[in-house]
Amino acid sequence: MDSCDGEVAWRFGAAKPELAAADGEIRMRALVSRIYGCVDASDPRPVVPLASGDPTPFACFRTAPAAEEAVTAAVASGKHNGYPSATGVTEACSAVATYLSRYLPYELSTGDVVLTAGCNHGIEIMMAVLATPGANVLLPRPGYPLYEARAALSGLKFLHYDLLPEKGWEVDIQGVKALANENTVAMVIVNPNNPSGAVYSSHHLAKIAETARELGIMVISDEVYEHFVFGNKPFVPMGVFGEIAPVVTLGGISKRWMVPGWKLGWIAMTDPKGILRKKKIFASIIVYRGISVDPAAIVQGAIPQIIANTDETFFTNAMNVMRETAEICYQKLKGIKGVTCPHKPEGSMFVMVKLDMSCFCGIDDDIEFCCKLAKEESVVISPGSGLEMKNWLRISIAVDPPLLEDGLERVKSFCLRHVKPIIMNQAS
Amino acid sequence: MDSCDGEVAWRFGAAKPELAAADGEIRMRALVSRIYGCVDASDPRPVVPLASGDPTPFACFRTAPAAEEAVTAAVASGKHNGYPSATGVTEACSAVATYLSRYLPYELSTGDVVLTAGCNHGIEIMMAVLATPGANVLLPRPGYPLYEARAALSGLKFLHYDLLPEKGWEVDIQGVKALANENTVAMVIVNPNNPSGAVYSSHHLAKIAETARELGIMVISDEVYEHFVFGNKPFVPMGVFGEIAPVVTLGGISKRWMVPGWKLGWIAMTDPKGILRKKKIFASIIVYRGISVDPAAIVQGAIPQIIANTDETFFTNAMNVMRETAEICYQKLKGIKGVTCPHKPEGSMFVMVKLDMSCFCGIDDDIEFCCKLAKEESVVISPGSGLEMKNWLRISIAVDPPLLEDGLERVKSFCLRHVKPIIMNQAS
Ligand SMILES: Cc1ncc(COP(=O)(O)O)c(C=O)c1O
Ligand SMILES: Cc1ncc(COP(=O)(O)O)c(C=O)c1O
Repeated sequence: MDSCDGEVAWRFGAAKPELAAADGEIRMRALVSRIYGCVDASDPRPVVPLASGDPTPFACFRTAPAAEEAVTAAVASGKHNGYPSATGVTEACSAVATYLSRYLPYELSTGDVVLTAGCNHGIEIMMAVLATPGANVLLPRPGYPLYEARAALSGLKFLHYDLLPEKGWEVDIQGVKALANENTVAMVIVNPNNPSGAVYSSHHLAKIAETARELGIMVISDEVYEHFVFGNKPFVPMGVFGEIAPVVTLGGISKRWMVPGWKLGWIAMTDPKGILRKKKIFASIIVYRGISVDPAAIVQGAIPQIIANTDETFFTNAMNVMRETAEICYQKLKGIKGVTCPHKPEGSMFVMVKLDMSCFCGIDDDIEFCCKLAKEESVVISPGSGLEMKNWLRISIAVDPPLLEDGLERVKSFCLRHVKPIIMNQAS
Repeated sequence: MDSCDGEVAWRFGAAKPELAAADGEIRMRALVSRIYGCVDASDPRPVVPLASGDPTPFACFRTAPAAEEAVTAAVASGKHNGYPSATGVTEACSAVATYLSRYLPYELSTGDVVLTAGCNHGIEIMMAVLATPGANVLLPRPGYPLYEARAALSGLKFLHYDLLPEKGWEVDIQGVKALANENTVAMVIVNPNNPSGAVYSSHHLAKIAETARELGIMVISDEVYEHFVFGNKPFVPMGVFGEIAPVVTLGGISKRWMVPGWKLGWIAMTDPKGILRKKKIFASIIVYRGISVDPAAIVQGAIPQIIANTDETFFTNAMNVMRETAEICYQKLKGIKGVTCPHKPEGSMFVMVKLDMSCFCGIDDDIEFCCKLAKEESVVISPGSGLEMKNWLRISIAVDPPLLEDGLERVKSFCLRHVKPIIMNQAS
């Protein structure tokens, strides 16, 4: 009430604490742009962007021709210019239900699927719907900071359980049990996992379901990276265990089809016992979705054709490239003093790498490591501090293989240059 | 905690009061679908849909070829598959800034524009950003129920000021002054107006700005129907008076280009004195937008071409059809006993019509009127009760002219059939 325009005391402009709490998401973004700011513009070499999970600038990750054709056809039809129904274009919901059912031991129906404006929108909806007074949700650490941001904005409390690097980044089941209390309503898992690159086995998923059942909570399974696997483990949807505990599956075409900018996701009730319906969770999702944004109708209208017409070779080729980049990354990192990659990435677009700060001279932490690396080598990597993982790095491997190789060579030179002499000697 | 699955007491499923408060939006939708439910399936005549503001099913309202071509080109380029920047594709923000500046006495810059997933998303963002503890916002009655729903969800209080049918649905300026209190931070206006069909004069907008200044509040001007005018008054953006009081302009391509399903809108800081920046409102918008959904990048990428290449004749033709439907509607209604249209529509897609319930026999209120009309004549109209305007109707005139004519003929037969005999005699 202090700031004046001539004689006017404008009444608006009070602080909004919930927005300050959106901090985590913002902090990661701010960190990454600070690190971009360190890049030396006079370096003639290309910048190697290993911070973001957006593969679309690379020709080898161009989406399937069938996907582009489907959207073009939806536009040309003139049939998807108007308001879609409040849960999504029916044919699209139905196509997604059939698609997801391929991998489940039961059939989803059209009414089990709500389309969203990307998987982020699904996260927003779930955090809002669960935010009843006092309730809390269990979130993974390391995780995807939008969960914390949306929970804070909705007034939903959250508690962090750990992913265990020494166990292939599996969920710390004992930790989850110790953490949950009578106000806990849900746990979130991300599988295939961002940021660790892990893919959960059927056995582990079953244990998660049993744990959720024991605690009386639902599982929110973020499967935005569904089928984005290139190791030895197949992708198993959490919904397979929906009889044990109710599962809300979040997904979308962003990753598998490499079109995150198209903003088309879904929320599926993979809950064959109908508990989410009985407990009115589904009804709340529908109400919230009804007063929220719609995904673009021209993309919704294209979904049946995108799913039906995408050639299997598109997926195979993409996963072949990812297998190559995972291998490059793992092998290159092995040869670098001061960094360890506890688990070779087998899914998603990321891997977590641990820094041993005692090896380096004149570098105090992950943030300084990333800043100096950007400055000296024009390689941009996210510091783990943005994910509450101090002295870790999150590296994107969804990068053109030669560029990734070049980038990691530069990381190696950088580390060699900054490693303590004593360590150098030990190594040789 | 009562509902059980075998021996499991699931902990989730508590009631979420803010979602129940999303009521208004839901109520209107529920009313309209109830009225659709009254239609007699055995009636061989086509259903006349006068409830929704979606002109896209009609060939005469097909979007401009240039708009479809621009999106097709954006898809074909492969350049808009990835994550756009958090305030929107820069070229698109810039194109919108230039477009809006054509009608303003000052220039907007790229940084004054944030792209949103439709104008609804802009409403969501503004209601969230203004929801500081205790704050309230003034909303028009009749209005657009999403404002109430999103304000309630965000914990922002709202108070209703009236639009005055006898004054061409102008804002009740005295009422606004009487209503505002020290916690009022903003007033919302909708111009061209949904649901009344009014277009505000420059003189009236200036008075609104003066009032906002006097009260120390900002104006949120919902101009989703910008340039959608077909009477004698030109469209004047509220931003023209942004020097008097800071204005946040909400807009988008949904209405003028007739593509509400593409979900592309904007928030523009039409605030040449920079008060919204100084008071951190703009910063809050950016933070909220950063943890909210993105509009589809393929539509964002098409915006510069959509704006540059749409032929003026597309707009002229569309407004010619709207002028025709406005005339049909006004003239037809004049000849019907028991209904009055206080103001001929001159903009937007709707008109408000008053029922004189004393004229009718066996019809108690607007809801019963609409139900019986649907049943007997297969004409679907929104009852004013959905907008807190009991015994009014909201009629969409964005309908193929012959169908509108047919529909209003049926309304006439219906009214003739239900009018009280005494009134019939007076009339003849
Ligand atoms: C775990 C996780 N969930 C959700 C998302 C967002 O998906 P979308 O782009 O479909 O909104 C991402 C994107 O990186 C992610 O990593
Ligand atoms: C006053 C008003 N604001 C906003 C909107 C929503 O616009 P969009 O479809 O771009 O989200 C509408 C739609 O009818 C409207 O009438």
